[in-house]
Amino acid sequence: MQKISVRSALSADQVGNQVKLEGWVRTRRDSKAGFSFIELNDGSCMGNIQVVADGNLANYESEVKKLSPGCSVRVLGEIVASQGKGQTTEVQASEVHVYGWADVETYPLQKKRHTMEKLREWAHLRTRTNTFGAVFRVRNCVSRSIHNFFQERGFLYVHTPIITASDCEGAGEMFKVTTLDLEAPPKADGKVDYTQDFFERPSFLTVSGQLEGEIFATSLGNVYTFGPTFRAENSNTSRHLAEFWMVEPEMAFVDLEGNMQVAEDFIKRIISDVLNDCGEDLQFFNDRIDDTVLSTLTSMADSEFLRVSYTDAIDILLKSGQKFDYKVEWGTDLQSEHERFLTEVHFKRPVILHDYPRSIKPFYMRCNEDGKTVRAMDVLAPKVGEIIGGSQREERLDVLEQRMQEQGLNPADYWWYLELRKYGTIPHSGFGLGLERILQFITGMGNIRDVIPFPRTPGSAEF
Amino acid sequence: MQKISVRSALSADQVGNQVKLEGWVRTRRDSKAGFSFIELNDGSCMGNIQVVADGNLANYESEVKKLSPGCSVRVLGEIVASQGKGQTTEVQASEVHVYGWADVETYPLQKKRHTMEKLREWAHLRTRTNTFGAVFRVRNCVSRSIHNFFQERGFLYVHTPIITASDCEGAGEMFKVTTLDLEAPPKADGKVDYTQDFFERPSFLTVSGQLEGEIFATSLGNVYTFGPTFRAENSNTSRHLAEFWMVEPEMAFVDLEGNMQVAEDFIKRIISDVLNDCGEDLQFFNDRIDDTVLSTLTSMADSEFLRVSYTDAIDILLKSGQKFDYKVEWGTDLQSEHERFLTEVHFKRPVILHDYPRSIKPFYMRCNEDGKTVRAMDVLAPKVGEIIGGSQREERLDVLEQRMQEQGLNPADYWWYLELRKYGTIPHSGFGLGLERILQFITGMGNIRDVIPFPRTPGSAEF
Repeated sequence: MQKISVRSALSADQVGNQVKLEGWVRTRRDSKAGFSFIELNDGSCMGNIQVVADGNLANYESEVKKLSPGCSVRVLGEIVASQGKGQTTEVQASEVHVYGWADVETYPLQKKRHTMEKLREWAHLRTRTNTFGAVFRVRNCVSRSIHNFFQERGFLYVHTPIITASDCEGAGEMFKVTTLDLEAPPKADGKVDYTQDFFERPSFLTVSGQLEGEIFATSLGNVYTFGPTFRAENSNTSRHLAEFWMVEPEMAFVDLEGNMQVAEDFIKRIISDVLNDCGEDLQFFNDRIDDTVLSTLTSMADSEFLRVSYTDAIDILLKSGQKFDYKVEWGTDLQSEHERFLTEVHFKRPVILHDYPRSIKPFYMRCNEDGKTVRAMDVLAPKVGEIIGGSQREERLDVLEQRMQEQGLNPADYWWYLELRKYGTIPHSGFGLGLERILQFITGMGNIRDVIPFPRTPGSAEF
Repeated sequence: MQKISVRSALSADQVGNQVKLEGWVRTRRDSKAGFSFIELNDGSCMGNIQVVADGNLANYESEVKKLSPGCSVRVLGEIVASQGKGQTTEVQASEVHVYGWADVETYPLQKKRHTMEKLREWAHLRTRTNTFGAVFRVRNCVSRSIHNFFQERGFLYVHTPIITASDCEGAGEMFKVTTLDLEAPPKADGKVDYTQDFFERPSFLTVSGQLEGEIFATSLGNVYTFGPTFRAENSNTSRHLAEFWMVEPEMAFVDLEGNMQVAEDFIKRIISDVLNDCGEDLQFFNDRIDDTVLSTLTSMADSEFLRVSYTDAIDILLKSGQKFDYKVEWGTDLQSEHERFLTEVHFKRPVILHDYPRSIKPFYMRCNEDGKTVRAMDVLAPKVGEIIGGSQREERLDVLEQRMQEQGLNPADYWWYLELRKYGTIPHSGFGLGLERILQFITGMGNIRDVIPFPRTPGSAEF
């Protein structure tokens, strides 16, 4: 008997087939006529298939009538057209085998609704709920879309290192990695002797694979990274994680205009793949989580992303007459309220801001001739603000060294990064997209902890 | 003028097209007739395209005749059929623009060959060599193949956590992750006060995503992880890294037989994708690195993998008359020499050994009725030995708890893992494949440090 998924079983073309289904009971309902309906889910889709278990099954009284939410079963039977409303097919069971019980007294996921906070404490069980099944199917779809987008364009997938000895990437606070005994670390001259540590020097978890990605772009052409990234920041917000996944393409012989175009194509591709492949899950988010999810995604897939310079954006904000909490002033970073005003109120579509003041941007961004701005870009989306940040990279050795000194960095720490400019330097560009940020945007989930399997935040590393 | 890759430019159907090419000079050769040949590479493939730069180019004397290995250029010109041997096409340049020079006095990658050890010190430049270009194109191909194999079968890609508070996974020595000041960690009762650390408890880098993967398999069905994994072992060998990438599928309602079949299909798929997509690179490895690479891969793609029990394998080894350094005895782990004898000498094909002694295997592997063995399996390949390790998982709560106690583990540390068995437990299985191990197998590269972009080993975390 062929094993099929619930997703397949729900399709009309299975009618008449003898099949095997395996999954978990969501509910059981007994008919007065002496049979039971079991709603069965196996994670292959949001929907359950209805199993009709007849009273003459050998274990009907002893087992079937004791099934409760969470029990695992194997069902053999025939797929038949359903008489019920809202479903095309159901299974007429010839056998219901119980793999595992779930005690109704202690099983946490009874029918009543639980808060997101409570479900986070049960991260080992929350994947059994409709919401988290949908979240992780969408997460898979977006991850697949990311790979497909870049692979189809001939980008190489590159694994940049997680452990790094550069404490100077400047993108945020770093976690230390060590094998020293913290109770009694070896000392030399009164200080911790890192020559006895695993890597014989202080080591950290990476905050970005960009600099290493540039090594590959400046030798093998277009590449992308997709992997975990870390921030040891004590930010207990709904938008921050200590461990998250980031995509960072890096492109050879590409300037800022090319970079912006790839970023726009990339986001649109992700959105159109999710709209095509996860319709049922998106409908659920739209119904239960945020009723603007579908309209926002559809309109974003169809909009041309505007290009607006930072300087023009500042003008627009200053002339808007809008009252903001944070002052608008050329030379300071835009706040979320400013970004949202631009995309949601003023332009009513996604906007790519470019050419930011050099004083607020990192050393590696390419300097413009005006002496005041760098070739940076941020993609702003309605509801969430910045979703992508990137730049053309500074490829001129002398300018790069000068920028490092400007920012108090020691060029010697970056000897290999500088050599990429010393030998056969090329114009190149790249950007970064946080996977969890775009997942929040797509699903409407309010807290970033609920779009990653096991969130790491201050004080929390369970599971 | 259309930008194309060197890979495209080498194809006969480009003849007659005006194109733009960008890349790095590999060599320059001047003809007495007053023009120059430039070998241009852009990383899109192993091969270079020959650029014919005529003496009447405006910058011929001032720049073209000074081009040396490593210089970066943009070439505009027409693709023409090549008169030369061993190439189909070449470019008749109408413009050669120099992006960046590479001083012949100091550029490390001059024509002479360098040792692998030396190239490791120049990991920021080694990607510009033929060998490492080929390695990283193959690495990309294998990574893509991994995703395609599982996605086409409906597996969900799951990101299990890198930072974990379980120091009890038992698979190896772990790195500590901390934000405490190692010079003066806070103390309570004379010991380090981890409640003041970022996660408020001791935290580590993961050695495996399996246990968390099981959470997803026992709720959403078949899943796989693909991400970085860590071992803080002081192993300075050609087969060990402190940071490496691992793939770990975990499958619901699948027993050991199903697990072995997926493992076999998986390896064959990777090999056939590499044979199809990376022919030129594999030919290079066969010519320059290991002349058995192509024959081994081809034969492996065609062989049925044998299933042999550990007990039968011990019998075969004992009766072989072969002299081994390590004693063969039921109840001890097989050594590499034993594994290689079985695959290379005795069976002459890949072998999957199964049902290993329970005393040498971890607590989570399913116990057989014989009381002596567990449902473990190892896939052994010629030349490298074990390439995949996996098992059916113990799904019986009482047996699992007993096994934990047998191995001196505290069940309370695994409360959530046990609850997967308490509520709706199911038969399930999975395995792990180290990306770098299979890359060594495919490329013939002798040292694992040379199949990962930036190797992390004891004393080494540069770049």
